[in-house]
Amino acid sequence: MTNATLSEPATQRTVIAMGELSTYADAPVLTDALASGARVTLCWRDGAQAHFPLMWLRDNCACQACRHTVTRERLYLPLTPITAAPQASLHDGNLTLVWQDGHVSDFDAGWLHQRRPGQEPAPVIPARRPWAADFAPTSVSHADFAGSAAGERAWLTALLRDGLVLLDEGPLADEEVSRLAERIGPLRPTNFGARFDVRSKPNPNNAAYTAIGLALHTDLPNWRQPPDIQLLYCLENEAEGGESIFADGFAAADTLRRQDPEAFRILSETPIDFRFQDEEQDITTRAPVLSVDHDGQLIEVRFNNWIRDSLRLPAHVIDAWYDAYRQFWQLLHSSEHQLEFALVPGQMVAFDNRRVLHGRRAFDPSTGRRHLQGTYLDLDMLESRLRVLSRPD
Amino acid sequence: MTNATLSEPATQRTVIAMGELSTYADAPVLTDALASGARVTLCWRDGAQAHFPLMWLRDNCACQACRHTVTRERLYLPLTPITAAPQASLHDGNLTLVWQDGHVSDFDAGWLHQRRPGQEPAPVIPARRPWAADFAPTSVSHADFAGSAAGERAWLTALLRDGLVLLDEGPLADEEVSRLAERIGPLRPTNFGARFDVRSKPNPNNAAYTAIGLALHTDLPNWRQPPDIQLLYCLENEAEGGESIFADGFAAADTLRRQDPEAFRILSETPIDFRFQDEEQDITTRAPVLSVDHDGQLIEVRFNNWIRDSLRLPAHVIDAWYDAYRQFWQLLHSSEHQLEFALVPGQMVAFDNRRVLHGRRAFDPSTGRRHLQGTYLDLDMLESRLRVLSRPD
Repeated sequence: MTNATLSEPATQRTVIAMGELSTYADAPVLTDALASGARVTLCWRDGAQAHFPLMWLRDNCACQACRHTVTRERLYLPLTPITAAPQASLHDGNLTLVWQDGHVSDFDAGWLHQRRPGQEPAPVIPARRPWAADFAPTSVSHADFAGSAAGERAWLTALLRDGLVLLDEGPLADEEVSRLAERIGPLRPTNFGARFDVRSKPNPNNAAYTAIGLALHTDLPNWRQPPDIQLLYCLENEAEGGESIFADGFAAADTLRRQDPEAFRILSETPIDFRFQDEEQDITTRAPVLSVDHDGQLIEVRFNNWIRDSLRLPAHVIDAWYDAYRQFWQLLHSSEHQLEFALVPGQMVAFDNRRVLHGRRAFDPSTGRRHLQGTYLDLDMLESRLRVLSRPD
Repeated sequence: MTNATLSEPATQRTVIAMGELSTYADAPVLTDALASGARVTLCWRDGAQAHFPLMWLRDNCACQACRHTVTRERLYLPLTPITAAPQASLHDGNLTLVWQDGHVSDFDAGWLHQRRPGQEPAPVIPARRPWAADFAPTSVSHADFAGSAAGERAWLTALLRDGLVLLDEGPLADEEVSRLAERIGPLRPTNFGARFDVRSKPNPNNAAYTAIGLALHTDLPNWRQPPDIQLLYCLENEAEGGESIFADGFAAADTLRRQDPEAFRILSETPIDFRFQDEEQDITTRAPVLSVDHDGQLIEVRFNNWIRDSLRLPAHVIDAWYDAYRQFWQLLHSSEHQLEFALVPGQMVAFDNRRVLHGRRAFDPSTGRRHLQGTYLDLDMLESRLRVLSRPD
């Protein structure tokens, strides 16, 4: 057992570099530290108390030998169990530990306060919120998005929370969608390229490149990792028809789970094949329409009637699967879950392709031009961007 | 009940277009078809028999109204249950169904044979094979890879089966790694770019850009979707040290599961945080070191001591987690699971970043140059490429 040597906390603490770019300096100083057995017990001025395992503290030493000063990456390897209690002392309300081998570790009180075992920091990434019947998407002007961190934060927050957000009053400029996307992260390329044009064209290799109506679907469910976020930027929309439609697949799946748990079970426990083939590609994967995690929480919707492959299931499962699929289809296309509007030139819609289904009404290409440009982004990049924009100035 | 009208199978069958680019023409012709109740029962000349649900058959109609002739995508929507048996007849050993509404569906006998309910086709993608103690990687020459479908197939097959493959005797040409990768699919970009150079450099933002030894790790476990396949092409390797090391993470995890099921359980059931932060990025995700699917099968290893964030777990879990981590570390670094060799200029190693860990010995940059170029590819693209190369000529 080692008693802490207490020193009076200074009003202006020297913040110890912990290799962090996010803040923790506002947290309270330490008032007591006691190393005993396999734990160091710390008390903060706000009354918080926590017991830290020795191994955790040693592993998170932020000195230059234990953490690379430039890359901020951990150099210390926790290969030797730490069993001997260190000498603990407080300096200006921060913690210093001297380990049995003489190694010294300094910890900022606020950093430790944020990382007390079992604690979670206040989340920057918003929780998903299912669409209510009166859901109306958030819209951010192009000027606000491009001109202020607050505008971009609002756009990111709405997209991560609702799975869909609009950008308005953008320029009618070729590739503007790529420029907006690249603020956030690299374009995610697929077999249709890193950036695609949606308009009717001869010899289409995809229904999106025709003028037919597109029922609700998710893109590329035939990939193990379908694109996370889709951006669709409207450059021209003069043709009759062509309204965009969307549905919150998670909200519809929740309704299905309540109304018919057996249908939900079938769609979530029955992997089926999705497949796209052309002269150059044969991309196929096997996954359920509704993916749930180990806790039964919905994590992904794969829904695309065009590239759903023939079911390879025992005959008695097939009829039940079609019944469940039909029910889910009807829920998605019910007014309760569906959103319809016409994109105007200069407007961009962004949506979570693993949650929100999209489609469009048929249009008549003889009545005018319709031209969207689209690309994909990784969700990792959007979350990272929101964290960086949420750092204190 | 509808009895089939039988006609004599022709020796040279006319293959009906089923919207497929892979073959099914060698399969046997049909000898009998009987529509009864909710099933059509089919018999083939090889003695196979199968019962097809009506809905399945209607859903897979490949006529021009039901399947787009150019995109090959399904246009038919299975929204109306099919309950009335069709009229079934055979023509040249293939099946024709006339549905109650008059719609006609033609099916190729071989296509149906391949897709009998509950049947699986012969897999083109090889099963994963864990490294044995005497594992030696397959090596394909650059000339064979670039010059023949057989060479590229051999390379792809070994990579998908073993999780690691070599390419030898390639040119010492800048960007050759990108050219090789782009034969297969678009480069997968990350926060380190679409293509990266591994050599020591000033102000590194990543341990790989220093000369220090790199313990075994997987790349970017702080992404929700870490890169699948990594390619590392050696252009120069004159420095002392710098040998490459690899380990089959799946084989080591299987050993851990056998030796200490509780340690395996802790690493597979305890999500931890991985995090990379610099001025531009803060990319973090929470996932276990060992990910298993709903059947308990291992599907992914995330292992990177540099960007493992501090554990946010109850104190009593933390000690057990470090013990399990240490055990897995030791298994990975045991000679049983580890492979070490020096890459020579013109050689490229490719490996499955979600299965195989990689590292390198420290090198002395004062003794010579060491320069690798790397990129990532999506597994979807490798599997697709192997399927296309396996199509009959």
